[in-house]
Amino acid sequence: VDIAIPLYDGFTALDAVGPYEVLSNLPGATVRFVAAEPGPVAADAGMLSLVAAAALDEVPAPEILCVPGGRETRAAIADGRVVEWVRRAHETSTWTTSVCTGALVLGAAGVLEGLAATTYWLQLDSLRECGARPTEQRVVRVGRVVTAAGVSSGIDMALTLAALIAGDDVAQAIQLGIEYDPQPPFDAGSEAKAPEHVVDLVRAVAAARSPA
Amino acid sequence: VDIAIPLYDGFTALDAVGPYEVLSNLPGATVRFVAAEPGPVAADAGMLSLVAAAALDEVPAPEILCVPGGRETRAAIADGRVVEWVRRAHETSTWTTSVCTGALVLGAAGVLEGLAATTYWLQLDSLRECGARPTEQRVVRVGRVVTAAGVSSGIDMALTLAALIAGDDVAQAIQLGIEYDPQPPFDAGSEAKAPEHVVDLVRAVAAARSPA
Repeated sequence: VDIAIPLYDGFTALDAVGPYEVLSNLPGATVRFVAAEPGPVAADAGMLSLVAAAALDEVPAPEILCVPGGRETRAAIADGRVVEWVRRAHETSTWTTSVCTGALVLGAAGVLEGLAATTYWLQLDSLRECGARPTEQRVVRVGRVVTAAGVSSGIDMALTLAALIAGDDVAQAIQLGIEYDPQPPFDAGSEAKAPEHVVDLVRAVAAARSPA
Repeated sequence: VDIAIPLYDGFTALDAVGPYEVLSNLPGATVRFVAAEPGPVAADAGMLSLVAAAALDEVPAPEILCVPGGRETRAAIADGRVVEWVRRAHETSTWTTSVCTGALVLGAAGVLEGLAATTYWLQLDSLRECGARPTEQRVVRVGRVVTAAGVSSGIDMALTLAALIAGDDVAQAIQLGIEYDPQPPFDAGSEAKAPEHVVDLVRAVAAARSPA
């Protein structure tokens, strides 16, 4: 399986690395990180850089593409290069997927028109701008398009995809291989479950970051 | 908070990036990836490189260190440089932590002598060689030493640590910020829960990788 994960300045590291860790363990998988220019690409907090092994142009037609989100997704959309790559790659892909605000990149590429989709909980409404139907599920699959909710949900999405591609046994073996038996110390991972003052705190931090 | 994550050839990407994504969101946090030499460091499957921003020597005394595991942990221990760095950093650290087989690096540095600790489920027995007491919990804290189980458990460990450092509200805000409301499609993330033939499959793959 030939998988490409496009990077852009300000992507969120876990959005990309969660699915990578799952999908790279598929039998015969090749994962390539790609970007407008090969080389290091800085993640959103500016403290991590992942190396893009190839330019977007060098990997025009992967079987699977997985677009991460990030704080700078809107700048990446405005830049246009990743969007154009997604538009073309989607013409021949087996699976077109996103994590978090990566869905907005799929949307800008026209992939989500008329489809149910999900994204980061604070950006669900933005999906309407792309003609998609915002759906509050952690993983949303419509045909060969699979979108995931925020950041960490890429792990769940990739395991779902692994099962579709290679069967339940392989997906479960990958889950055990990464010992994914989640036990968060709190149950605050969704807007519905988190205490109201915590939701307010996250909204305030997000608003301070992007005054849009 | 000043956090250092040491990298070495063959580390597991999610071991490092899970805690990074949590800890980098602590108020005032600085996370630095460090390695024997600054520059790209290849993760275990050879398809991902993370950039070490600094040499180990440049960051001798972080407040928090978090050592990832990987398929090549034993080679890293034999190399000695990360082990020696951990030994010295632990003298002054506030928190010394590991994910997966990163615990074996802590062990080689003498950090786990006499302590309860955990690591990747297939390597629990190896902890005895370091004088530690293998403990089947996802996150094990003894004083300022915190070890986590395999790969994805670094997220749970880092959230636990975030609460200890900055309080429950901040930890929950980080959890909501990364939308960590895990919903794996299977319940196969531990040896106890996975079907027996899946456990056998993972054991066989691991044995083929390291014939030790």
